[in-house]
Amino acid sequence: MIEVIGLDGDDTLWHSESLFAAAHDTFAAMLAPYTAPGFDVVARHYETELANLEVFGYGVKGFTLSMIETAIEVTDGRITAADITRLLDVGKSMLAHPVELLDGAGEAVDILALAGYRLVLITKGDLFHQEQKLAASGLGERFEWVEIVSEKDERTYRRVMDRLHVAPDRFCMVGNSLRSDVVPVLALGARAVHVPHAITWVHEEATHDTDVPTIASLADLPAWLDQQQAAQPRFEDRG
Amino acid sequence: MIEVIGLDGDDTLWHSESLFAAAHDTFAAMLAPYTAPGFDVVARHYETELANLEVFGYGVKGFTLSMIETAIEVTDGRITAADITRLLDVGKSMLAHPVELLDGAGEAVDILALAGYRLVLITKGDLFHQEQKLAASGLGERFEWVEIVSEKDERTYRRVMDRLHVAPDRFCMVGNSLRSDVVPVLALGARAVHVPHAITWVHEEATHDTDVPTIASLADLPAWLDQQQAAQPRFEDRG
Repeated sequence: MIEVIGLDGDDTLWHSESLFAAAHDTFAAMLAPYTAPGFDVVARHYETELANLEVFGYGVKGFTLSMIETAIEVTDGRITAADITRLLDVGKSMLAHPVELLDGAGEAVDILALAGYRLVLITKGDLFHQEQKLAASGLGERFEWVEIVSEKDERTYRRVMDRLHVAPDRFCMVGNSLRSDVVPVLALGARAVHVPHAITWVHEEATHDTDVPTIASLADLPAWLDQQQAAQPRFEDRG
Repeated sequence: MIEVIGLDGDDTLWHSESLFAAAHDTFAAMLAPYTAPGFDVVARHYETELANLEVFGYGVKGFTLSMIETAIEVTDGRITAADITRLLDVGKSMLAHPVELLDGAGEAVDILALAGYRLVLITKGDLFHQEQKLAASGLGERFEWVEIVSEKDERTYRRVMDRLHVAPDRFCMVGNSLRSDVVPVLALGARAVHVPHAITWVHEEATHDTDVPTIASLADLPAWLDQQQAAQPRFEDRG
């Protein structure tokens, strides 16, 4: 029986990657006059982000610093101070952007809470920004526990399950990233449900060799859980 | 009887503000040729930091973004791309800087752990950077719990005490910031010990109208705790 449900934040409960995509559009348009036709500044930014990941970690502030670094590099220092100010403003507006819940996410969380599931938010990235997004989402009261982490690996999930005193077979993680929300959770013998999002950051892509339960939207989660609980053998059935 | 000891990280266990001070020296030297004699770029940077605090939160990445913003403003955009790259490098080297424990901090933590106190690290700032510093400090194993928070207020401390199932009169917080480590803790009826640091960020200064126990160094904490426990009435003394 599933007792605790872990929910991812970015692109599972609320939109996130679309803001990064919009920022990349602005970035590409800004740098087009400085670079050769067809030069892929977004790919170059991704390389810079990856190289900086071990000092910056995840989140908008590191993304913004990497945009400034990339802009200086690809323009050989010709980028204007006015354009760098625009990049700072892009970062700030991403951080200040209102939280937009994904379709059906708020309702699904309400249904699961009312059904008595223990809900935990397990989200990766910048502590301050994630807290702000949770507060702005209006969903804060639904969660028994909030865990904002710098990396979602097996160690992270083991620690969360320990803190919640829940065994792996009673824990189910739900999220849009195979790499962060599914693979490490299955490795611990817990359950996981994949909710693919239209846009996934290259870094979060992963493959998995067994079938992963997949739903199109969080709106389908309550029904999926009902099926699992119904399929569970009951003690009465054993005799 | 004090059972749980909360320890702050930056400038209580390990050096932090000295890195910000060194960055400010570099920043001031870089901008001196651009600005009028006597212009205080560090004060201007502090204003920018404060204005950005509600979008950036605490930490080196926000500090760096605010340095770039300030540099562009005070030079009216004349700052060179090479200088902005130097500011990016200042930020990265702060993030990658080795952790240097304060004198006596490691030994004090060892003594307290061996004496059977439950130790928790309660530190404010960037999640990723604080985790890295804790790992690099070598003190990770000493802590029963690590709480990295975006703000240290009464709500934060109440949550930590709830999570640890400890009553306020059995909790004692130890740190260098009156504003973050002492005032909110005393307000909850818990104990607090102030360990002043040579450099304190203006933002962390505070006053308190009652006497706060103060020690010169973490090395003095075990003896202070011994005194408190000795001063505690024992059941045997009551008859």
